[in-house]
Amino acid sequence: MLIPGVYFSATEAGFKPGRLDLGLIYVPDAVASAGVFTTNHIKAACVQVTQKTMARHVIKAILVNAGNANAATGPQGIQHAKQSAAWVAKALGLKPAEVAVASTGVIGRPLPMDCMAQGIAQLTHHPFENDMGGFASAIMTTDLVKKMAHVTIEVNGQPIQLLGFAKGSGMIAPNMATMLGFIVTDATIDSPTLQRLLSEVNQATFNCVTVDTDTSTNDMVLAVASGKTPFPSYQATALAQFKAGLMTVCESLAIQIARDGEGATKLMVVSVRGAASQSDALAVARSIAASPLVKTALHGADPNWGRVAMAVGKTSAKVMPQRLGIRFGPHPMMQDGQPVTQDPAVVASYLKSDTVDIEVDLHVGKHQARVWGCDLTKGYIEINVDYN
Amino acid sequence: MLIPGVYFSATEAGFKPGRLDLGLIYVPDAVASAGVFTTNHIKAACVQVTQKTMARHVIKAILVNAGNANAATGPQGIQHAKQSAAWVAKALGLKPAEVAVASTGVIGRPLPMDCMAQGIAQLTHHPFENDMGGFASAIMTTDLVKKMAHVTIEVNGQPIQLLGFAKGSGMIAPNMATMLGFIVTDATIDSPTLQRLLSEVNQATFNCVTVDTDTSTNDMVLAVASGKTPFPSYQATALAQFKAGLMTVCESLAIQIARDGEGATKLMVVSVRGAASQSDALAVARSIAASPLVKTALHGADPNWGRVAMAVGKTSAKVMPQRLGIRFGPHPMMQDGQPVTQDPAVVASYLKSDTVDIEVDLHVGKHQARVWGCDLTKGYIEINVDYN
Repeated sequence: MLIPGVYFSATEAGFKPGRLDLGLIYVPDAVASAGVFTTNHIKAACVQVTQKTMARHVIKAILVNAGNANAATGPQGIQHAKQSAAWVAKALGLKPAEVAVASTGVIGRPLPMDCMAQGIAQLTHHPFENDMGGFASAIMTTDLVKKMAHVTIEVNGQPIQLLGFAKGSGMIAPNMATMLGFIVTDATIDSPTLQRLLSEVNQATFNCVTVDTDTSTNDMVLAVASGKTPFPSYQATALAQFKAGLMTVCESLAIQIARDGEGATKLMVVSVRGAASQSDALAVARSIAASPLVKTALHGADPNWGRVAMAVGKTSAKVMPQRLGIRFGPHPMMQDGQPVTQDPAVVASYLKSDTVDIEVDLHVGKHQARVWGCDLTKGYIEINVDYN
Repeated sequence: MLIPGVYFSATEAGFKPGRLDLGLIYVPDAVASAGVFTTNHIKAACVQVTQKTMARHVIKAILVNAGNANAATGPQGIQHAKQSAAWVAKALGLKPAEVAVASTGVIGRPLPMDCMAQGIAQLTHHPFENDMGGFASAIMTTDLVKKMAHVTIEVNGQPIQLLGFAKGSGMIAPNMATMLGFIVTDATIDSPTLQRLLSEVNQATFNCVTVDTDTSTNDMVLAVASGKTPFPSYQATALAQFKAGLMTVCESLAIQIARDGEGATKLMVVSVRGAASQSDALAVARSIAASPLVKTALHGADPNWGRVAMAVGKTSAKVMPQRLGIRFGPHPMMQDGQPVTQDPAVVASYLKSDTVDIEVDLHVGKHQARVWGCDLTKGYIEINVDYN
């Protein structure tokens, strides 16, 4: 799955001694780029710098380090982020404004610029590598698995590729869960179109994952197109195909993140339908997926639909209790607001699956939403308490 | 601390075999009553019945059972709640509309009315007892300690008492955390005044506790005044004294609930000041107290102020990152948006205290708020997963 015009490399720069911790995506002739960023009001330096850069330029390189978030680091952090971009730019013959930087890891500590200088020198010495696996490893923190997704769409007989990477649900002491995503394609597309598609797809995929309700200061998802393959982006059907491909990649990455949530043993897929509005559907789905009591019940494989009903009721979404329906996969638990008699052992057996579907029908409208989450276990506590 | 005109009794009715599980507060000549109820849209039958009753009548008896929440039980649940009130009323010579009912415990299962009938018969056989400790025990679920608070205020040389009970942060399989509060006083006061004071005090006390962000279907706080002691409620200063006493009782109960949060080992007191509005202050304080990453850091006594900064930034409250200040008790960790150098061992030692103060100054306005929470531990997971 080589992507024409896109290169990947990774190195051990020393942010996290003994492992790959600095990665580079290089798209020398990039024709378009797009990004979505954390909504946290306290944004990491890398987010501030990259967000500003991308508003005006097509980026041709993305530098990502693990081990240090460069967040809450004040003016020095901004300077460090700009310096990192400048070093990459100089080595590759780009403008600094053509380089995006992303970081995750410890916050409130200065970025070790000696590691950065040395790592960038190593990466840019052989910039035309295709070490995708290395890149996927270098961006991991406490992720247990590398997260990649790839699709090929065919437009007018011409194959077009989309390749995505993500990290997420990871922690480094002392740090916060952070989500990064990077998508590359060889399609010839323009930045405004790519941005519109990325924003739309992001809403339905990465924004529908919840592990612990904590929104990182460092989240970002970037997309870059190399333009090596012709793509009739003026054709509505071609664009729809491209969007579907992007959706597939982002959805796969989002699910990989939820399933690899800190301490998680299973994936929870919450589907809400019959809502009065789109925002109601999403609020209810998020409330269920984020509820510690639902998450612990799921871990215990306990058919406790009452906790789901509680999570439905606690949002401001329109709910008519006497119409509420709740299912655990194939098993209806509540119908028309009343309990359905079930054999608890049968339902518990279903809840022991790797993937559990929780389906809610509010029966008050026509809107629906889906959110991915995971169970809450002692593993989550261990990862976030006992890292000293 | 006998409260003139107020009686308490408790019995083993069989909802939770082998322990006190049904309690009664009896105020035969009550002159005023007031209540605040869960905002969850899925309300337990007892909440629906009691809320309706209290809108029109002064209640003279409160019946509380543990072990069954009578929630998500449909029309049968409503009928059971009304029947319970009717039985109490008949035995005590009251109108059914003068009896409030409150329940916590398993949801989605019919209230065992044989237990209820037998328990009510026992309680109303000796209605003039003063078994306060028994009542406090009977309303517990997984609470580890009985929660009571008492103050005496003196108005024009006349002592007036306020006595409160609460249960909270408890679980019964399969159930949800639930908070109940009951306050009695001998003051002569009218219902509208009592309701206004209770609503105001509730906002600043019980509504400022968060253990796990899950809002129960069964929450309620009721207040009843026996009118046995004269009280010049038309005097502004007397009313202010009464409100201060009510605040003391409710604040104490709220703190007791937070400290006894499921699995908790310490109390977290989050104070936010310098907010642009009252709702901003509360939103930021709640965000910090509810953040799983802040709660786990607190448990690990890790001076991870970065997680606090993250929780500050993730709400929609107005924040100017360059003005943000964060303290752990006496230790400033962030000032003017920049890290303050501290000896981590010294701060960690402070964080090992029974009570930890987290203070945030947004420096963008004049509003402040305080919220009580607790740490997040493996104990929470155990209680909510492993109850089978």
